[in-house]
Amino acid sequence: MKDIGILKQALPYIRQFREKTFVVKLGGELLALKECLDNLAHDISLLYQLNIRVVIIHGGGPQLSSVAKMLGIESRKVDGRRITDDKMLWVAKMVFAGVSTDILAALRQHGTPGIGLSGVDGDLVEALRRPPRRIFNRETGEEQEVDFMNVGDVDAVNPRILQVLLENRFVPVVASLGGDAGGQVLNINADTIAAEIAAALPAEKLFLLSNVCGVLRDVNDPASKISYLTTESGARLADSHGVSGGMLPKLTAAIRAVEAGVRRAHIIDGLQENALLQEVFTVKGLGTMVLRPEDEKAYLEQG
Amino acid sequence: MKDIGILKQALPYIRQFREKTFVVKLGGELLALKECLDNLAHDISLLYQLNIRVVIIHGGGPQLSSVAKMLGIESRKVDGRRITDDKMLWVAKMVFAGVSTDILAALRQHGTPGIGLSGVDGDLVEALRRPPRRIFNRETGEEQEVDFMNVGDVDAVNPRILQVLLENRFVPVVASLGGDAGGQVLNINADTIAAEIAAALPAEKLFLLSNVCGVLRDVNDPASKISYLTTESGARLADSHGVSGGMLPKLTAAIRAVEAGVRRAHIIDGLQENALLQEVFTVKGLGTMVLRPEDEKAYLEQG
Amino acid sequence: MKDIGILKQALPYIRQFREKTFVVKLGGELLALKECLDNLAHDISLLYQLNIRVVIIHGGGPQLSSVAKMLGIESRKVDGRRITDDKMLWVAKMVFAGVSTDILAALRQHGTPGIGLSGVDGDLVEALRRPPRRIFNRETGEEQEVDFMNVGDVDAVNPRILQVLLENRFVPVVASLGGDAGGQVLNINADTIAAEIAAALPAEKLFLLSNVCGVLRDVNDPASKISYLTTESGARLADSHGVSGGMLPKLTAAIRAVEAGVRRAHIIDGLQENALLQEVFTVKGLGTMVLRPEDEKAYLEQG
Amino acid sequence: MKDIGILKQALPYIRQFREKTFVVKLGGELLALKECLDNLAHDISLLYQLNIRVVIIHGGGPQLSSVAKMLGIESRKVDGRRITDDKMLWVAKMVFAGVSTDILAALRQHGTPGIGLSGVDGDLVEALRRPPRRIFNRETGEEQEVDFMNVGDVDAVNPRILQVLLENRFVPVVASLGGDAGGQVLNINADTIAAEIAAALPAEKLFLLSNVCGVLRDVNDPASKISYLTTESGARLADSHGVSGGMLPKLTAAIRAVEAGVRRAHIIDGLQENALLQEVFTVKGLGTMVLRPEDEKAYLEQG
Amino acid sequence: MKDIGILKQALPYIRQFREKTFVVKLGGELLALKECLDNLAHDISLLYQLNIRVVIIHGGGPQLSSVAKMLGIESRKVDGRRITDDKMLWVAKMVFAGVSTDILAALRQHGTPGIGLSGVDGDLVEALRRPPRRIFNRETGEEQEVDFMNVGDVDAVNPRILQVLLENRFVPVVASLGGDAGGQVLNINADTIAAEIAAALPAEKLFLLSNVCGVLRDVNDPASKISYLTTESGARLADSHGVSGGMLPKLTAAIRAVEAGVRRAHIIDGLQENALLQEVFTVKGLGTMVLRPEDEKAYLEQG
Amino acid sequence: MKDIGILKQALPYIRQFREKTFVVKLGGELLALKECLDNLAHDISLLYQLNIRVVIIHGGGPQLSSVAKMLGIESRKVDGRRITDDKMLWVAKMVFAGVSTDILAALRQHGTPGIGLSGVDGDLVEALRRPPRRIFNRETGEEQEVDFMNVGDVDAVNPRILQVLLENRFVPVVASLGGDAGGQVLNINADTIAAEIAAALPAEKLFLLSNVCGVLRDVNDPASKISYLTTESGARLADSHGVSGGMLPKLTAAIRAVEAGVRRAHIIDGLQENALLQEVFTVKGLGTMVLRPEDEKAYLEQG
Repeated sequence: MKDIGILKQALPYIRQFREKTFVVKLGGELLALKECLDNLAHDISLLYQLNIRVVIIHGGGPQLSSVAKMLGIESRKVDGRRITDDKMLWVAKMVFAGVSTDILAALRQHGTPGIGLSGVDGDLVEALRRPPRRIFNRETGEEQEVDFMNVGDVDAVNPRILQVLLENRFVPVVASLGGDAGGQVLNINADTIAAEIAAALPAEKLFLLSNVCGVLRDVNDPASKISYLTTESGARLADSHGVSGGMLPKLTAAIRAVEAGVRRAHIIDGLQENALLQEVFTVKGLGTMVLRPEDEKAYLEQG
Repeated sequence: MKDIGILKQALPYIRQFREKTFVVKLGGELLALKECLDNLAHDISLLYQLNIRVVIIHGGGPQLSSVAKMLGIESRKVDGRRITDDKMLWVAKMVFAGVSTDILAALRQHGTPGIGLSGVDGDLVEALRRPPRRIFNRETGEEQEVDFMNVGDVDAVNPRILQVLLENRFVPVVASLGGDAGGQVLNINADTIAAEIAAALPAEKLFLLSNVCGVLRDVNDPASKISYLTTESGARLADSHGVSGGMLPKLTAAIRAVEAGVRRAHIIDGLQENALLQEVFTVKGLGTMVLRPEDEKAYLEQG
Repeated sequence: MKDIGILKQALPYIRQFREKTFVVKLGGELLALKECLDNLAHDISLLYQLNIRVVIIHGGGPQLSSVAKMLGIESRKVDGRRITDDKMLWVAKMVFAGVSTDILAALRQHGTPGIGLSGVDGDLVEALRRPPRRIFNRETGEEQEVDFMNVGDVDAVNPRILQVLLENRFVPVVASLGGDAGGQVLNINADTIAAEIAAALPAEKLFLLSNVCGVLRDVNDPASKISYLTTESGARLADSHGVSGGMLPKLTAAIRAVEAGVRRAHIIDGLQENALLQEVFTVKGLGTMVLRPEDEKAYLEQG
Repeated sequence: MKDIGILKQALPYIRQFREKTFVVKLGGELLALKECLDNLAHDISLLYQLNIRVVIIHGGGPQLSSVAKMLGIESRKVDGRRITDDKMLWVAKMVFAGVSTDILAALRQHGTPGIGLSGVDGDLVEALRRPPRRIFNRETGEEQEVDFMNVGDVDAVNPRILQVLLENRFVPVVASLGGDAGGQVLNINADTIAAEIAAALPAEKLFLLSNVCGVLRDVNDPASKISYLTTESGARLADSHGVSGGMLPKLTAAIRAVEAGVRRAHIIDGLQENALLQEVFTVKGLGTMVLRPEDEKAYLEQG
Repeated sequence: MKDIGILKQALPYIRQFREKTFVVKLGGELLALKECLDNLAHDISLLYQLNIRVVIIHGGGPQLSSVAKMLGIESRKVDGRRITDDKMLWVAKMVFAGVSTDILAALRQHGTPGIGLSGVDGDLVEALRRPPRRIFNRETGEEQEVDFMNVGDVDAVNPRILQVLLENRFVPVVASLGGDAGGQVLNINADTIAAEIAAALPAEKLFLLSNVCGVLRDVNDPASKISYLTTESGARLADSHGVSGGMLPKLTAAIRAVEAGVRRAHIIDGLQENALLQEVFTVKGLGTMVLRPEDEKAYLEQG
Repeated sequence: MKDIGILKQALPYIRQFREKTFVVKLGGELLALKECLDNLAHDISLLYQLNIRVVIIHGGGPQLSSVAKMLGIESRKVDGRRITDDKMLWVAKMVFAGVSTDILAALRQHGTPGIGLSGVDGDLVEALRRPPRRIFNRETGEEQEVDFMNVGDVDAVNPRILQVLLENRFVPVVASLGGDAGGQVLNINADTIAAEIAAALPAEKLFLLSNVCGVLRDVNDPASKISYLTTESGARLADSHGVSGGMLPKLTAAIRAVEAGVRRAHIIDGLQENALLQEVFTVKGLGTMVLRPEDEKAYLEQG
């Protein structure tokens, strides 16, 4: 290590985030790339060693689609949310856990002891099956009646198992499944589950990492990235259909988390090297940040 | 509940096993039957409420074979141990975790908070990849060189994650995978992993539940069941090829556990109703018990 | 144990009452019968092993009368409450503790570690000497001035010694004496002391076990037993002189406890086999239950 | 308080005995005198406030004899040890506990929270019934076959209940009864039980307080008091029949305790004012001290 | 120790103050006298052994003046408060710590483990530099503009380091310095710092020990000592210029502490033998006590 | 912070030293330079935030000489160790504590809560006064009888106060004084005290920072710096008079610490920027390292 003095610049951030909790949602598309997974595991291991309590949430959409296809099971999504019939649920339970195992192995390379969970473990996520309903499909531009089947909405989060693991210095790795009162396993959107877990702990920060670089004003122009939104301006943007279909659940989740007590939520591009560290250890990060309206002034002055 | 007085007969056993640890290995063939799984979850929930610390280990052989077949991947076994190439490992990681999720959901029905793990979580099982070797194949009666590929042997067990969970009154549900020092996930025989975990804790009892009723003198005659073996008589029996191919790893695991400090190991038929409770709450159970030579006399006098 | 499956029916109750506290008052007339005492000790030991925190309160009226008679000391009661002069107090201190020792020995037979206390130990019960007063004597039907002498009313309960013992898994066995600020030992009605201790802890349930089967509408007709009363209907019944002299303090104590936070109070016949277990592990028990008015509806629907 | 400076002289002793345990056996003859009991309770309360952990053991011989006589039950002793038939045991259980209650009330006057126990509580004293045997009767000078009946010898002490109480700053007050494995309550010599409890804790000091001023060379001459004995010189004295019948069990108990790890045992006259404080806070006390042979030299130099 | 019984008179006070916190401010003039320091260390060690939690605050005015003079640095005070330029601060940091070391050595003689601190340690005292201001100089009778320079006023007290030390049975010895947010060390009046620390803990008692015997009505007449003041009558006295220049900060500090939650503050003469013990262990002490108006009645009745 | 990725290179070192204890001795000559002190406080604050437990030991030789001179007190040293008469001791107590206060203020700038101690606090260092003795004076080349007066040698270290502070996340800052049994404060060589404290904890590493860059083969040639010594080769070098007078106590201290259980001792130049971090976070540091002979091989292979 040549320029050791650079370490000292991180000191104020290390102090600021000590013993704070970060919830990091890793999109399935990132995990499919071995180098990207390794890089994220390295970043997270550093946060872990700096006494930040990290909870990882992951989905596994691309993996699920691919395995389902291999098994001859058809995938169907409406408005970015997958319809999960019994066969697809059976595949999802398997695939998501397989993804967990990959994350655990990558963390282990850096000496970080992860523990794979899903929302079914220790009653972590109590969910309600989503009733069929008419929704506006942004892709088709029409309303339609949709039964998502084994898809759940979060009813309650029991964070005790996370607290036990965090206090014992394990890193929980949570797959986005939940269970209803009758023991039925349900598939839940990973951004949503990340937001609800962040709200329940509560976390200091929520990171939503995917393969897009943030909220864009013009979905075709990366230069139109919005560097921050308050919960209020974010909600207005979402209501005005100004956000693309894939980004909408992320933005909604980010707003929900900040409204529920998380200090800042970050939507960032996990493919960019050191993206996570950049958001933590610098004043201005790379993606779109959602913060409380009352924090906007202080944030602008800082920059 | 009519005859409430019967509860009182269980009192001495409840006292005896209070705060003791039981490791229960559930064979994949039992878990494939919904009613059987529910029944076992009910039994285990009762033990849990009676302050017995339960660790569940499971495999998922039949499920793995079936999913592999659906994916067009060929399964191959030698001497009851599966050859696990990269594709099969990829399937195994998924299938085993899917099985875990089913067990967690069944436990949840009885209010028991399970936590799904594999040997990769929290460095629970450190494994070594098994080198290719010449083994005697009981099925063909010939020696052959076998490379089991991604199959591991247990090198060390780090029970801390189990202890943290047990002390916080969770029930760990462990899938039979381990990791080597280089981060490679390895498939491990579930009976072996159960024995090694039982030895590392150490447990009071190890239960190996499958669809056979115990060690038989004549594999075709259920009436030839051996009710108990000492580690010594058990080892002689194994050496003399007096045990069938499927039973050999179970018997070896039972002997290993007892030699390493577990008080008693039980090989029992999980399909029989209340089989687990029968072994815990009565003097003479249903299957084959392995015990230390020095405990034989006391056991016989008790009967 | 033949029908082991029956154990599983108790599972929901075991979960419901785990770590809850039960205060059990044993009437002196029950303790005088060796078989009855053994049976109760067996029941209580089972509750203890099922993680229920049990506090036993006992009187020793019949024993006190009998020893006093042997010592040539005259016993006198008004309205079911004993007049305790100095000689009688001296006998009471001895007799009650002798009764404690018998209970401890019976518990010990089942491996349950009891600790004998009276309200004087660890300042458990602070009492006030009852001033002479005019009371209506239900037996004579007339008012009369009565000085109960060394009889006390509970002023305050300091439950710390009970909490220390319960947390260390001992079963406190409390004789119904208290002390006033000046160090004077006072005799206190055991039903009252049980109710006040149950209120101070607070307990989940209060059991008042005697040799009568509950509150009767017609004292001469066991079939007129009332299966439940709310604190309101119970109070109306007591005010209307509809309860016999011996039952009145029990009913009053049960109402007091429920009003002070105990969920349910049960007046039951301790001579009936398994009476205590019947109340705990079945929907409808054997005696008279007192509950809050707001719980009545749920109770009726359950039955 | 006039001469407050005198407090400062106690400082070295307060430091020396901080958090140490003292076992104080109070003879029944002292407790019969109200003023003496009050005085001892005052002394013990001071030790308690100075962070000394005090365990009180008491008998109740005179009280037992007197109540037995009132009940028309004959008392019989051989060699200073009472023959305890079933009736006498029944009386003893009552009387000893009555004595406990008196001690608790006296302590309470000085704000000291005592807890009354007997050896039956929490399995404190496991005893064995003493078999009939030929003993030399010092009073008659002849050997005789004696069945002491419900009299026990200490088999084991389980000090957990004492430790729980001491750690929670209660003062245990222990009556000299024990229980055998079959649940039979047994009467045990209070000096013996004090010595065994002191040995099991272990205590720093054992005090045996009675109405005699120590070991006398000539039983009729108070001036012949021996100020100290080593365990060796004490044993020689006992073997040579140089000690009176009443003193023998005390001396034996003192020697036993010191041999088992207690640093010093003191046989003192509890009737003398401040006797206990004198032994604790001055170099040379009032009674007879038993110490280890290897401590003799240091003790003599100190004087 | 002759009259051991006298110890028993202290019992009620020992009980009353057990585990309470006393803040004791020792004036520099007392510490300059070796015998006086030894005597105070003896008194404090006794309080310490009686489970009183003692925090010592000290100044070092005379020592500072003397060393400054030796170093050729001029001392200047206004209204009893020193003007502290950079040179004087440099000397103060050294001299105060030297005084701490002397106190620690004296405590150590009595086995009491002191820990020397200043308000700079562990952020104990956050101070603000006092801005130049016009003050009325009681000595000259005129207003004047004064810049006290490196003199601070207490802004906040962070008592965590004191609590950690007290819980681990150390005696903190605090020199009267603080630090401002910019890391500047500031000199703070020791009476003030003692009052603020007493208020922050909060303490049961604050003792201000100096070489004067209390608040005098006539500064030249020791017989005019006021035995007690309420915070109200004390404030009136201070406002009416009825208190001498040296006494004013002490009286103000005492009033401030009692208003902030300390039960009683005592201004006493530390030169008088056993002065501290006299205040603790007797109803009427030697100096001037400040108490709350609502406590006045009870205090007068007690005397 | 530009190149954030560099942080990740520190990960293995952060893991390696987590919760380990480093003892850092800061020479007085470094502390006299404000910028150097600030730089060291920054480095130490980073170690502190990375969960390394840091104990700072400091002398204050140059400061002591300078203040003594101002006070007209003559300084005298033999063989690098100061002769400390009563006046000099009086100055040392003051000066060393003044130095502590400067270090605390510098740490506070980086949010690190230091606590200033000397070996007198909490009986940390028990010392023996050094008797007059004939020593070989390396400067004069002759033997001479020297009475160092109030100079002590470490007799025992009681690390409890350090452990209490470290567990509560304070950074102890220890001035090099100790006390003897009679309460006499003694001046102790800071290198020695650092080595003994490192040995008593025990520490993972001991750093001796001064204004020289390590052990030189030729005292006039910085290029002759020895990069490492084993305890054995170091001892041979010291015995052969191959080390200069100022370096000898440092080398001796480093060898002593490693022999007593410290893993590595480092003699480094504190004036060089980031010197401390360089030694911690790189394979090869800047100064001279002392290690155990059995670690030499592994160290060389690593390089």
